[in-house]
Amino acid sequence: MSDEYIQDQWPEEGTFCWGCGKNNEHGLQLKSYWEGDEAVAVWKPKDHHMAFPGILNGGIIATLIDCHGTGSANAAAHKVAGDSDQHFMYVTGSISVKYLRPTPLNHPVTLRARIIEMGEDKIKVSCDLYSGDVMCATGEVLTVRVDLGIFLNIGKK
Amino acid sequence: MSDEYIQDQWPEEGTFCWGCGKNNEHGLQLKSYWEGDEAVAVWKPKDHHMAFPGILNGGIIATLIDCHGTGSANAAAHKVAGDSDQHFMYVTGSISVKYLRPTPLNHPVTLRARIIEMGEDKIKVSCDLYSGDVMCATGEVLTVRVDLGIFLNIGKK
Repeated sequence: MSDEYIQDQWPEEGTFCWGCGKNNEHGLQLKSYWEGDEAVAVWKPKDHHMAFPGILNGGIIATLIDCHGTGSANAAAHKVAGDSDQHFMYVTGSISVKYLRPTPLNHPVTLRARIIEMGEDKIKVSCDLYSGDVMCATGEVLTVRVDLGIFLNIGKK
Repeated sequence: MSDEYIQDQWPEEGTFCWGCGKNNEHGLQLKSYWEGDEAVAVWKPKDHHMAFPGILNGGIIATLIDCHGTGSANAAAHKVAGDSDQHFMYVTGSISVKYLRPTPLNHPVTLRARIIEMGEDKIKVSCDLYSGDVMCATGEVLTVRVDLGIFLNIGKK
């Protein structure tokens, strides 16, 4: 069911992101879901997502960790809020990624994220990226809460 | 002259990168050049590189800082080596990016990088991203030296 995916539950304005927007036909269209307390995503690179022949690009890896991280943070905040109609949004304040080894281009990668700090204004997420059983990269995403209305109106100015 | 661009001086294997490879038609095709001790790149987003309407995606920003950083590090190492035929390559070991404010999607961005630590095994680069005169993001890229032959053969296995 598509309702299982975190990104499929977002309002329309949030579905054009290059990393995870279902309505961005040129984007990566990452889809994340909960597996217990862990947010998981499986994503298959295309040939042109390369760094060097056979190796996945580091910027693509950073994008996946970023979007999976913010997706997890927003979903975690909504879990806490329950069925509340409250609108809020967390965006990336900072990100750090360590590249542990080259990531193969021709295999799906799996992202596994956990909430490691949960505040009202900030949520920090840790995220590992695997190729098969091998961890190839690990990162942290510090997300900050922004006013949804003000933020979404920036682009209309 | 295309020879002014750092990425145009790379061997063919290095020209397919999604972030900065001139031979990756789907990629960002970032091009960097020296302006004194500062490496500079100007890059124009496409509409689909969005995070939200009117706002540039953070993963794209991380990719630009990553590729501009490694490009600067490699070019700096080659400067030190002079006209030597020695082959070496620095790739990203880790990256951190702070997003200071939303980056407009409909304007070119300018990247300005400086070498802040220069070792034989590691080179650290600091890189700021501007929209017009406004700094929107800042990051650091720690690059590590790898064996060119071994690294480029990974993808052929």
